[in-house]
Amino acid sequence: MRFIDACLGRQVDTTPVWIMRQAGRYLPEYRQLRKGTEFMDFCKSPTMCTEATLQPLRRYDLDAAILFSDILVPVEAMGVPVEFVPEPRLPRPVRSAADVRALRVPDPATDTGFVMETVSKIRAAIPADKALIGFAGAPFTLATYMIEGGGSRDFIHAKSLMFNDPVAFRDLLDRLADTIAPYLQAQIDAGANAVQLFDTWAGLLSPADFEAFALPAARAIIRRVKRNGVPVIYFVNGIAPLVEVAQTSEADVLGVDFRVRLSNVIGRLGGNVAVQGNLDPSLLLGPAELLRQRAAEVVQEGRAAFGHVFNLGHGINKETPPESVSTLVDAVHEAGRR
Amino acid sequence: MRFIDACLGRQVDTTPVWIMRQAGRYLPEYRQLRKGTEFMDFCKSPTMCTEATLQPLRRYDLDAAILFSDILVPVEAMGVPVEFVPEPRLPRPVRSAADVRALRVPDPATDTGFVMETVSKIRAAIPADKALIGFAGAPFTLATYMIEGGGSRDFIHAKSLMFNDPVAFRDLLDRLADTIAPYLQAQIDAGANAVQLFDTWAGLLSPADFEAFALPAARAIIRRVKRNGVPVIYFVNGIAPLVEVAQTSEADVLGVDFRVRLSNVIGRLGGNVAVQGNLDPSLLLGPAELLRQRAAEVVQEGRAAFGHVFNLGHGINKETPPESVSTLVDAVHEAGRR
Repeated sequence: MRFIDACLGRQVDTTPVWIMRQAGRYLPEYRQLRKGTEFMDFCKSPTMCTEATLQPLRRYDLDAAILFSDILVPVEAMGVPVEFVPEPRLPRPVRSAADVRALRVPDPATDTGFVMETVSKIRAAIPADKALIGFAGAPFTLATYMIEGGGSRDFIHAKSLMFNDPVAFRDLLDRLADTIAPYLQAQIDAGANAVQLFDTWAGLLSPADFEAFALPAARAIIRRVKRNGVPVIYFVNGIAPLVEVAQTSEADVLGVDFRVRLSNVIGRLGGNVAVQGNLDPSLLLGPAELLRQRAAEVVQEGRAAFGHVFNLGHGINKETPPESVSTLVDAVHEAGRR
Repeated sequence: MRFIDACLGRQVDTTPVWIMRQAGRYLPEYRQLRKGTEFMDFCKSPTMCTEATLQPLRRYDLDAAILFSDILVPVEAMGVPVEFVPEPRLPRPVRSAADVRALRVPDPATDTGFVMETVSKIRAAIPADKALIGFAGAPFTLATYMIEGGGSRDFIHAKSLMFNDPVAFRDLLDRLADTIAPYLQAQIDAGANAVQLFDTWAGLLSPADFEAFALPAARAIIRRVKRNGVPVIYFVNGIAPLVEVAQTSEADVLGVDFRVRLSNVIGRLGGNVAVQGNLDPSLLLGPAELLRQRAAEVVQEGRAAFGHVFNLGHGINKETPPESVSTLVDAVHEAGRR
């Protein structure tokens, strides 16, 4: 598989491409499928999640499918209620050491079997040369949702717990690592060819705190999951100041957001670490010629990497015209030709 | 003045300190003062803005006062209505070349005379050894509010205009530069000893677009304002990947957010550029001992700089206990002693 080869630094015929949130609201067929179903119910339906996952692969020559799910699925399985209104809301946030101790570590097969069923269904439905990417949220990012009770701008509650009760905060990160590692393992056992760990909010830590809290928790998972030989991608949103430290996560691939030049990241990486990224998703709303040009620049920068998987530097915007994605995927494959 | 000396790389007896949003909601006396007054009306009252500016200087041994105002004041003067609900809302956003052409370039003295009156009042009220900092929003950041009609997460409308009609977008940036340069000049004429240009959202551009759009517009202002010999501080939120380019703004001081190590920024700066920053504001919600320790670390890193002004790496959180600010200011002055 072209995608797996790029992750592992093997030769490829062209640069592989997939898109964060490629199954989602910018697609009219997705909006149609979602109609009348609550988001969490949708996430628990293997039929609907499989269909959502397959939709973008019918339209575009993508090199990978990514499981349709939500990073908060395992959080709910830990005993923390999750709602979508439509933004995530956790009405019983985790705010103390006692709250942390009350969390359970779920069993992936019994508590989130619907995810594993979805993974199997997708793997059976897609061509052999397309990879299936499983995923989970990284512990720090999941912890922020659990503590804040939803999204946040400044992460006051999360950082407050982290500074005032680092023991409880680490206990929470440990329980999350103990939840996520077998959760990803179960996805791999069900047929995922690679997994991505999303640390969406870790870039809002100072570098010292990223290194002290977010990174070790992510690394604990990556080490356990890597034993399978499937590539692990670690996406840190806002990675620019954290590249050297993020590399110690031992991930095979670092996901790179669009706020840094890919060539800068590649130049700072030693050893056999591939990169994934990093076009600004808003270029999909601009003229096709500019999109092709900027995509080709990213592909060009990526040639210097140990391996390069093309992606956006953030999830695709729901306002994106679907035809822009065709333009992008074709431009990447054309520019990346060896 | 200790603050001015540090900005210009002159010797100081200790590290000067001020705090972004030091006059604001974390202070009970500020909440009292604001009670019953709409935010924009408050911004237009020299008496109230002067009082708000002075409040933190009565409590803390800060080295500078910063004008109490809002970055959207000159935007309203350009003919774009601004509301606060309490987040900023601009009900008639700028979305086309025609919208841009309809904007007026205000006269700072007649259209925003209340700001200049406030500056004079503050300068007359504070001790001679305390600096008064004037400020404005940088063109790109102001443009995002004007185009989005408020705050945003992904800046879809702003980037869409930027990519689809770069001529109109540059016209908007030019008009903003032509508004902000004389606006800052008038603050200096009224008594400001330094000025800060806030580019809060420029860090959400890819480095190529930062260099192509945000930076030249900020530099146009900085060049015009610098003729006065007063220090100009350029704060780019998310500066980590942009340090080398931001330096070409010709600002005397670069403001640094907390998501990068100050020592990293200092090591990448050539020439005579001072730095300002960069403690994570959420440390003010943690234990005093940790706050003192982390503040001392930042002070220590700052000793390698051409000049260092201590600040938070982002505005202070409204949840901050006021006594933490005392702890911080004293810790900085103690750790910075030469």
